[in-house]
Amino acid sequence: MSDLRIAVLGVGMMGADHAARIEARISGARVAVVNDYVTEKAEQIAAEIPGCRAIGDPLDAIADTDVDAVVLSTPGPTHEIQLLACLEHGKPVLCEKPLTNDVTTSLDVVRREAELGKRLIQVGFMRRFDHEYAGLKALLDSGDLGRPLVLHCAHRNPAVPPSFDSAMIVRDSLVHEVDVTRFLFDEEIISIQIVKPSANSGAPQGLADPQIAILRTASGKHVDVELFVTTGVAYEVRTEVVAEKGSAIIGLDVGLVRRNAPGTWGGTIAPSFKERFGQAYDTEFQRWVDAVRGGARTGNYTDGPGAWDGYAAAAVCEAGVESLTSGLPVAVTMVDRTSILGA
Amino acid sequence: MSDLRIAVLGVGMMGADHAARIEARISGARVAVVNDYVTEKAEQIAAEIPGCRAIGDPLDAIADTDVDAVVLSTPGPTHEIQLLACLEHGKPVLCEKPLTNDVTTSLDVVRREAELGKRLIQVGFMRRFDHEYAGLKALLDSGDLGRPLVLHCAHRNPAVPPSFDSAMIVRDSLVHEVDVTRFLFDEEIISIQIVKPSANSGAPQGLADPQIAILRTASGKHVDVELFVTTGVAYEVRTEVVAEKGSAIIGLDVGLVRRNAPGTWGGTIAPSFKERFGQAYDTEFQRWVDAVRGGARTGNYTDGPGAWDGYAAAAVCEAGVESLTSGLPVAVTMVDRTSILGA
Amino acid sequence: MSDLRIAVLGVGMMGADHAARIEARISGARVAVVNDYVTEKAEQIAAEIPGCRAIGDPLDAIADTDVDAVVLSTPGPTHEIQLLACLEHGKPVLCEKPLTNDVTTSLDVVRREAELGKRLIQVGFMRRFDHEYAGLKALLDSGDLGRPLVLHCAHRNPAVPPSFDSAMIVRDSLVHEVDVTRFLFDEEIISIQIVKPSANSGAPQGLADPQIAILRTASGKHVDVELFVTTGVAYEVRTEVVAEKGSAIIGLDVGLVRRNAPGTWGGTIAPSFKERFGQAYDTEFQRWVDAVRGGARTGNYTDGPGAWDGYAAAAVCEAGVESLTSGLPVAVTMVDRTSILGA
Amino acid sequence: MSDLRIAVLGVGMMGADHAARIEARISGARVAVVNDYVTEKAEQIAAEIPGCRAIGDPLDAIADTDVDAVVLSTPGPTHEIQLLACLEHGKPVLCEKPLTNDVTTSLDVVRREAELGKRLIQVGFMRRFDHEYAGLKALLDSGDLGRPLVLHCAHRNPAVPPSFDSAMIVRDSLVHEVDVTRFLFDEEIISIQIVKPSANSGAPQGLADPQIAILRTASGKHVDVELFVTTGVAYEVRTEVVAEKGSAIIGLDVGLVRRNAPGTWGGTIAPSFKERFGQAYDTEFQRWVDAVRGGARTGNYTDGPGAWDGYAAAAVCEAGVESLTSGLPVAVTMVDRTSILGA
Repeated sequence: MSDLRIAVLGVGMMGADHAARIEARISGARVAVVNDYVTEKAEQIAAEIPGCRAIGDPLDAIADTDVDAVVLSTPGPTHEIQLLACLEHGKPVLCEKPLTNDVTTSLDVVRREAELGKRLIQVGFMRRFDHEYAGLKALLDSGDLGRPLVLHCAHRNPAVPPSFDSAMIVRDSLVHEVDVTRFLFDEEIISIQIVKPSANSGAPQGLADPQIAILRTASGKHVDVELFVTTGVAYEVRTEVVAEKGSAIIGLDVGLVRRNAPGTWGGTIAPSFKERFGQAYDTEFQRWVDAVRGGARTGNYTDGPGAWDGYAAAAVCEAGVESLTSGLPVAVTMVDRTSILGA
Repeated sequence: MSDLRIAVLGVGMMGADHAARIEARISGARVAVVNDYVTEKAEQIAAEIPGCRAIGDPLDAIADTDVDAVVLSTPGPTHEIQLLACLEHGKPVLCEKPLTNDVTTSLDVVRREAELGKRLIQVGFMRRFDHEYAGLKALLDSGDLGRPLVLHCAHRNPAVPPSFDSAMIVRDSLVHEVDVTRFLFDEEIISIQIVKPSANSGAPQGLADPQIAILRTASGKHVDVELFVTTGVAYEVRTEVVAEKGSAIIGLDVGLVRRNAPGTWGGTIAPSFKERFGQAYDTEFQRWVDAVRGGARTGNYTDGPGAWDGYAAAAVCEAGVESLTSGLPVAVTMVDRTSILGA
Repeated sequence: MSDLRIAVLGVGMMGADHAARIEARISGARVAVVNDYVTEKAEQIAAEIPGCRAIGDPLDAIADTDVDAVVLSTPGPTHEIQLLACLEHGKPVLCEKPLTNDVTTSLDVVRREAELGKRLIQVGFMRRFDHEYAGLKALLDSGDLGRPLVLHCAHRNPAVPPSFDSAMIVRDSLVHEVDVTRFLFDEEIISIQIVKPSANSGAPQGLADPQIAILRTASGKHVDVELFVTTGVAYEVRTEVVAEKGSAIIGLDVGLVRRNAPGTWGGTIAPSFKERFGQAYDTEFQRWVDAVRGGARTGNYTDGPGAWDGYAAAAVCEAGVESLTSGLPVAVTMVDRTSILGA
Repeated sequence: MSDLRIAVLGVGMMGADHAARIEARISGARVAVVNDYVTEKAEQIAAEIPGCRAIGDPLDAIADTDVDAVVLSTPGPTHEIQLLACLEHGKPVLCEKPLTNDVTTSLDVVRREAELGKRLIQVGFMRRFDHEYAGLKALLDSGDLGRPLVLHCAHRNPAVPPSFDSAMIVRDSLVHEVDVTRFLFDEEIISIQIVKPSANSGAPQGLADPQIAILRTASGKHVDVELFVTTGVAYEVRTEVVAEKGSAIIGLDVGLVRRNAPGTWGGTIAPSFKERFGQAYDTEFQRWVDAVRGGARTGNYTDGPGAWDGYAAAAVCEAGVESLTSGLPVAVTMVDRTSILGA
């Protein structure tokens, strides 16, 4: 099956990352078109990707017959018209949040897609794909924790640009916990309260930071979120579910930790090397493929341990098998590396 | 650039995994040929992969002009002849350990590749690509811990097949720590001692399990490895480096933990959302691409949150911005979902 | 200096514990008098403690000239009159919470003590003496975290008696976090809000459990407390301070964990054996003293490793010093234990 | 029952600590006599302890009729004669390690006590009384982990005095793990091997540091111990038991962590406030008793929260109970503190 030809609209920091991601790490897709309101930026990125063109008008890019699907990394105010164009042309689109800039236009987009009768729009709430959130969701769905009652969240950034204002903490930061709540609990949020503690003296003048959001869901579940975007520490995202039969927390840099009756806390251990080293195999193969593809240029078709490493391991294991009998130290015999491979 | 055409030789559990990996998750490569001494197995897998052929003779597969590179997942005893064929045809090869089954033939392979003057052989010591081992190596290379002195390792499997014997604990299990030692310390191992404690009563009769391996490197560094392949617990791989200015440990299911002067222990926090959610973005994009490619068949071109989720988030944030002023609970206003999307 | 003679008033579960504590683990004090409205209970406990009397009227116990100080473990409604009696007789008193059962009488007690001009009343907010809370307070006082902004607390009990009602979650559970807030922040609380999520289906009918308390301090600091008294899990008390230069959390069963710029998390390691094994020495000595005092009865004047253990350690170390030279295994030589000590 | 009258022999750092411990934290005992070969040191300490005398000759101190029991903190070479004197006078003795300075005299002491027919000698292997080691022992005795097979230990000091030599690492450091092995496994050690890795460049010239000790017990259990006395980090003591049904580790600053089938890791949570806050209650009471005893001098008979703290808590809880009904923020009403208590 031929690769999916994607148009990436908006190649600022986020869109440029996505274009690189598709080229370097995603199987079955390639970036066919890039677009940005800064034309030079789009052309520069297009030049770096084999077979990629820059198209000046985002609607032209969407309509292009050599584009199968669209990634929207453009500013929020342009989303409505671009999404509607995607719907019109029947092009699947992965749209960075927000869907649109206000509730009315968002609802209009929902209606238009519903009228089409097929799901073409995906919104970029990427936390749903994070392994910790996925693990937490799976745990809830397993029923092991019983019915969830309370969600405690913290969302901390080390710093924000000077343009960040108090409402953006709600719209750009809290929005992720809004989706996390809906994702984990599978129900809508019915009320919200924002508490403003005394502000961090290191926050820009006028920025209400930190903020505490208190949400209530349709069935009465409680959610609190600490939003703190000028911590100076690091990027910290923590979520704890308190349920009728125990609790579970992610985001403490130690994986998913459960707290269960009768009085134990802890996590799980990988059952086999497949889970433990799956990422290692993927990385090994991707880097090997990249090295081999670049080998004609570099003269080196590997990106990792070579034949000498295999030989050295064999020599040590040979001596080990000998010691297995005697129990005594056995010297390892190897030829001199430089005699074969040079200095 | 066109995709690398790979021949996967040996499609048992490991090789079949690798074939699936290349197809589903590796960018820039595809499986062009599969081979197995069980012909039906190769043909079955070839049939599942678009554009893939089964070839009956491994040497034919290596020689095939439509094969750019080779993955060797065949049994160890066949490696020597297959590796030499790869060298002869100038084909890059990723060879699962062991390089070959004994020291003499391993050395011969090293010599033949050295004569060619280009590096074509990579050995599948995948731990070097694991994020925890890579982090440990980076920490050592940074010099923050000073000169390493001691390495403590544990390598535990819940169970092994009945055919597993005491020497295989050395050749198949310990071999990974042999490579880890050489990778982390950048020097050769000069002696080895295997200690056999009283055996686990749950181990197969005659299997010396656990075993303790004691290695010494050229510069006098000490390495000890607990090998225990019938723990009944899970797959546990732990490595601790003790160095002149502190120590660091991985494999406790809590990331890389350092112990530093003056008396602190702990790990690092992701500096930004890119590190924290990089995996989430990759997964999101891969699953979206897969969904879009399958969309004509399924009628659903998304694999994640849709337009409604974007609308719901907008509605909650709108109410949140209102509460930001009042500090009081604000009800969230949303239309009825079923009025638009049905039940 | 002679031992402090203490009257323990109220010897229910809590008071009986305190009496035992004073006798077994507190230096410089003894229980001279016990009192309870269940006379038999007091007499039974008095009979078990050498030199202890039961006195039937709590006010007589307070007034007794052979009582130097008072521990109040009586029900809250009796505290007011008993505290005032202590003040009248100039007797120091350690009063289990609550001070009294309502604000008015509490304030009256405060006034009466203030008029006396000496501090005789201590309230049993024992968390201030917990090593984790003390460590958190010391960290805040050190200034390392900067000005605190937010406090997140969880207070979970596995179960409560059937008589527990919704207001008791505030008065008996939350009261501890009220004091923790005042202790850590050194300022008063100016407002409080209680949020009632959908209740735990395992909670007694009518009990609003869990509850979320939201406090605000005079300087605008935010505190939230999850109160959940029917978790079925265990006793969990967690407190996290979020401050201008980092955060710190206790109650995760892993000690005090800090999160600091630039992006690290972790705890501290004991600087020397005194901190690490201080508790061990105390326990060793207390148990040895107890064993020696009981030795005439038991014929055994030790509670721990004996001379044989000292001999065995010497024998192993002797062999170890020999191996220090050779590097080889050295057999340990010991006489047969039964030849000296019997079977 | 009257307090045990103890003679503390040797009041260097360790003995002075023990004397202070007995006076400040041990119930039912007091220091009646101190002795040191530096007479002035003994007299100075005796002067600080009510009712304590200095006695110049250690054997006179042991023989003194007003001495019930002896603590030996004298140098190892004097232990033999002092222990035999304790046996002769029938005085219970807590002897800091080593029992004596060599195997022959240790065995002689064992024989002499055995002839007496009562156990008078306890050796100061204090780790047996540490809560983590006690928990590990209890876990092994419970059978939950099955038969233990392997013990991994690390014993790290930040620094040692210049006089510390390679053999002292065995005799003074390793000796603790020798006892830990015997304590946990209830069997003798039959062989020992010391491995000397390349030394820490920060260690004093000539000191073999780190060292690795490899022990084997009578039933074939394996023990390895990393001894490293110049880490520059902190005091780290770690012990891991690997057993037939799982493993458990202490000394990672996160309590006792188990690793169990089927693939879980973690610890236990305190079942109730008694376990969680037992130490807090003990500390609260000891500090209150000390404050009351010193009150006549200081005019303050408390060491902790006072009546005002009780009043403030009542005021907040009162408002909380009101909010329990409304769900809205309720202002807390309190009188001005300075109006009653002054500035």
